[in-house]
This record gives sequence, C-alpha cells and structure tokens, in this order.
Amino acid sequence: MGNAEFDLISRIHSRARSRPDVVLGIGDDAALLQVPPGQQLVVTADTLNAGVHFPNTTAPADIGWKSLAVNLSDLAAMGARPAWCTLSLSLPDADDAWIDGFLDGFMALADRHGIALVGGDTTRGPLSISVAAMGLVEAGCALRRDMAQVGDDVWVTGTLGDAAMALEAVLQAREVSPAMRERLDRPAPRVAVGQRLSGLVHACIDVSDGVLADLGHVCERSGVGAEIHMSDLPCSSELVAMQAPQRWPLQTSGDDYELCFTAPRRNRDQIVQALDFTEVSATRIGRIVAGQGVIALDEEGSPWQPPSSGYIHFR
Amino acid sequence: MGNAEFDLISRIHSRARSRPDVVLGIGDDAALLQVPPGQQLVVTADTLNAGVHFPNTTAPADIGWKSLAVNLSDLAAMGARPAWCTLSLSLPDADDAWIDGFLDGFMALADRHGIALVGGDTTRGPLSISVAAMGLVEAGCALRRDMAQVGDDVWVTGTLGDAAMALEAVLQAREVSPAMRERLDRPAPRVAVGQRLSGLVHACIDVSDGVLADLGHVCERSGVGAEIHMSDLPCSSELVAMQAPQRWPLQTSGDDYELCFTAPRRNRDQIVQALDFTEVSATRIGRIVAGQGVIALDEEGSPWQPPSSGYIHFR
Repeated sequence: MGNAEFDLISRIHSRARSRPDVVLGIGDDAALLQVPPGQQLVVTADTLNAGVHFPNTTAPADIGWKSLAVNLSDLAAMGARPAWCTLSLSLPDADDAWIDGFLDGFMALADRHGIALVGGDTTRGPLSISVAAMGLVEAGCALRRDMAQVGDDVWVTGTLGDAAMALEAVLQAREVSPAMRERLDRPAPRVAVGQRLSGLVHACIDVSDGVLADLGHVCERSGVGAEIHMSDLPCSSELVAMQAPQRWPLQTSGDDYELCFTAPRRNRDQIVQALDFTEVSATRIGRIVAGQGVIALDEEGSPWQPPSSGYIHFR
Repeated sequence: MGNAEFDLISRIHSRARSRPDVVLGIGDDAALLQVPPGQQLVVTADTLNAGVHFPNTTAPADIGWKSLAVNLSDLAAMGARPAWCTLSLSLPDADDAWIDGFLDGFMALADRHGIALVGGDTTRGPLSISVAAMGLVEAGCALRRDMAQVGDDVWVTGTLGDAAMALEAVLQAREVSPAMRERLDRPAPRVAVGQRLSGLVHACIDVSDGVLADLGHVCERSGVGAEIHMSDLPCSSELVAMQAPQRWPLQTSGDDYELCFTAPRRNRDQIVQALDFTEVSATRIGRIVAGQGVIALDEEGSPWQPPSSGYIHFR
C-alpha cells in the first residue's frame, strides 16, 4: 500500500457510514461483522469496467451509483436486506476529484439502503469497479431462481427498455431526456419489492441481461418453460412513443434492473397489495408452462425472435 | 450475460466444490450462506491487476493461486477460518485454456483451505481479478491491528524478502530458483498460524506492503511505536547469501504474506508451542514502545532508513 493508495483509502473511509453490526470496518486486515441469529447471509459480487459496462463519458457519480446498484439488484432478487459491502477500485491515476465524485454517487445509494462500506482496496490499473454486497434474510425465506412452477404467472416490475433506449441515444450522440438518462445511469434497485415478495412468489431474478434471457435462467433452473406476451411488456411513457414491435429489442436487451418473478394465480391480489407500499408497479407478462425455454409471442400469438439473446459482454 | 460469459461461468461452476453451509452457491442471483451461531463473519476483498500486481508473463495457474492467497492472508491475519469466496474476473478474451489454468491454481489453494467459491462474475476488460473472501471466527476472538501494547514483543512468521528477490530476478530476466519463484507466485497464507494465535497475541497484520509499513499500520491503530532490529529479520538460506544491509530493502519491500504480530513476553513459550504444529516458524524482531512510528535499527543500533515505505501501487 503506497501513500497515494493510503490517501485514497482515508478519503473513502471518511465517507463510509457504519452500522451497529459492524464490529470492525475499514482499517484492519478484514472487516468483522455480526450476523443476527436466525438470519442467512446473502452474497453477490459484480464488476463494472469502463467502456464495457458504461460509456467512457459517464460521470464519476453515476459510475459510483451504478456499481453499487447492480449488486443491490441481486440482493433484491433474493429478497434480502442490504447490510455490508466491499469496494475494489482500480484507477489509472490517484485522482481525488474523480474519487469524490464516485463516492457521492456510491454513498448516496448506500445511505438510501442502509448498507455499510466495510472494506476493499484501491489499486492502479484500467478503470474497473468490483463490489461485493452482503445482505441478510430470514432463514428459509430467500427468493430463488429454481422454484418456478407450471401455471405460475410471470411478472415484471417497473418498465422495460428505458436504459437501453438511453444507451442507444448516448452511443449515437442523440438527445435523451433526464428521466431516461437516469434509468441508464442511476437504476433504482428494487430492494423493498424483493423483501415484500417473500412468501408470495415461487421464483425471482433481476433483469440485468434482458427479460427473456433472465427468465430463461429461471426456466432452466426450475425445469419449466415460459410464454411471454411481448405486447404486455410494461413500457414507460417515453418508450411507448416507439411502436411495437420496434421497441421490443430495446425491451429485451438488458440493464433494466427490474425484478422478474413467478407466482401462483391465487396470490395476484396480495402481490399488488404488497407492492402498493413500494411505489413500484408490477405487470403480468405471461405464464410458466411445461417444457423448456422461453417463447415470446407477438400480438397475433406468433413467436417473436429477439435479435440477440441478451447483453453480451464478450462480443 | 452473453453465451461466452455463460460458458465461462459453467466452466467455473463445474470446478467449484461446495460445503454443507452453502445453501445456494453459484447459479442464482446471489449465494445463500449459513453462519453458525456464536460466530462472527470476517470479510476482505483484494484485486490483482496484470502488470501491477504480477508480471504479465505469470502463468495463469499462479495468478489463480495468488489472487486467492492474498485474500486468505487477510483472513489469516484476523485468525479466521476460511469459509466462502467470490471471484470477479475481467478478461480481454473468453479463453478456455487460460481459464482452466487459472482455476487449477485457484482451486488448488481453495481446496487446501476448504473455502468454497460461491459466486462472482466474468466480464470483458483488461485482465483483473477481484476476490472477496469470507471467514468465520468465534465471537470476540478475532485478531486485530489496534491492540498492540507497550512492552509487547514483535514477531514475524517465516522469512522475509524472498518474493521481492524473485520479483527482482524476474524483472531483470535473471535465473531464480524454483523455491524463490514459488515464494513470489504461490505464497502460502498463514491461515493455520492465525487461528492458533488467538488468545496469545495482542495485534496481528499480514505482511503485504513490507514489514515496516505493515507494522506501522499496527502502531498507528494502536497508538504505540515500535523498534525493529533489522539484523533479526528472518531470512531464507538463499537470501542470506546476500549480506546485510544489502538484503534489507528486499526484506521490507512487501509481497511476503507472512504474519507480523505483537504479544506479551509471558506468552513466548506458548507461541512457539502453538506454531509447532503448523510447520511455520516465528521470529522475534523487536518490541512495541511508547510513542509513534516504527524505528528500524541496524547492527550498531543506529536508525536505518528503508529506500521506500513499502509497495507502491500508484507510482
């Protein structure tokens, strides 16, 4: 650890809030944390690389926000309460202004969800942000991918395709509204929704790779198939201006950070009620069927083929 | 997640062993883990970047080993038993042979310490490996940096300077013995030592930045100073061929992954006995004094100034 790194760590440390269950936070070889009795630990890790997961022109604060958001979205999909996280930051230079901006975004989202930054490291290298996030869930109450059952409704929260629409505009240097840009740069992980769905749903996943690809993971793990009605995919007022089926590729291309879940029909009313308090809507988009794979159907009930199976990192 | 990434994840998944306390491992949005009652969770995260933390010519298996070793070394310094880890891997290409080699090294060390790989991600980007490691420790029994007391002996395990000697040889394209090269590429984290030191020592840290720099962190956090006798730094039979003080810069430059700890004099015999079973030696190199900072003393008792304060990432 050089002096420059030590300064960065001090800078990060001074911005990190603690929690009563953090026995030792940043500053020792490792963090020491207290898991309450009866709780299970939920752990996820995701990396964002410059030029791959966000355009190089993205503001540091937005990079900070999003690097935590994609991890919180995974905790949300498990129904977990966010608790602690680590941050491994590779930076080409020790740039105080960049770090302060990054932390503005990271900590704004961390504080919103009460998650404490408890460790990590800063290293020299191409810009890359690795976050590991830990959450807690009552033993046996986690949502998972492998419990979908034939006959389940398939639901998705919020709207789909906004982030992809904004990304396309940014890459083509077109104007994009602040609301759409926020959907790309500052996704709101559906943490409260995930917690409220426990006991009401059979399977849940976050929509990071595109709703068809992610639902495909649920189907594969659960040993079932799914039929999706493309015209039922929820759509923001901005995206609705783009007619179906032109908008469908955007609505299935990923980076939405909504939750897709399957639930028995009898729970429909309870699900709507549970989400009432979260200010997030949920829409039924299809159902789980016997078989395998996800079939996307257009307005006439004919299969619709997406142009890509989802967000491709290695292309 | 594209198909190439999915193949990589399958490849990693097929190599990962589980443990009974892993309720859900790789394959869901997050891992679900069972922390036993009475145990505290220990968490650390460290990143290795190509060309910064290892020479670009390093074998994939050695990179795999070392990326886990540096994290296990942090768990060792806390006295924790390794339990679970996540792996975030950024790769320029989806290269199956490279991945298999990497996993050979990573899993060899993981299996040795019974740590289960439970999640993470693979992304496209410059070669970078971020690992988060989790361990368990009896509540209240963790070793920490901030408890050193005036009068304590300062100890260090194993030998110092071997990895730095090997790195210098590699960078200068000189011959280096397999034993020295292993100290650089395959450090053995002192996990068993850390666990045995609980109750016997006041403070502990792993030697990653160089023994003087790391002991400096202990002193700062504990509000004490230290005096180190440079000629007492333990030395391998290969490094001893290089006379003091010529070898001292190597012995203080880092990448050793030994443990440095402080303990009351009355525990000397017990410490030696505790380490008897680990096949790792420990050497007394100085003592904790009132004041602040670490003073390194040469054979005449005059202050010796290291050429650098440790391993500098941002230089």
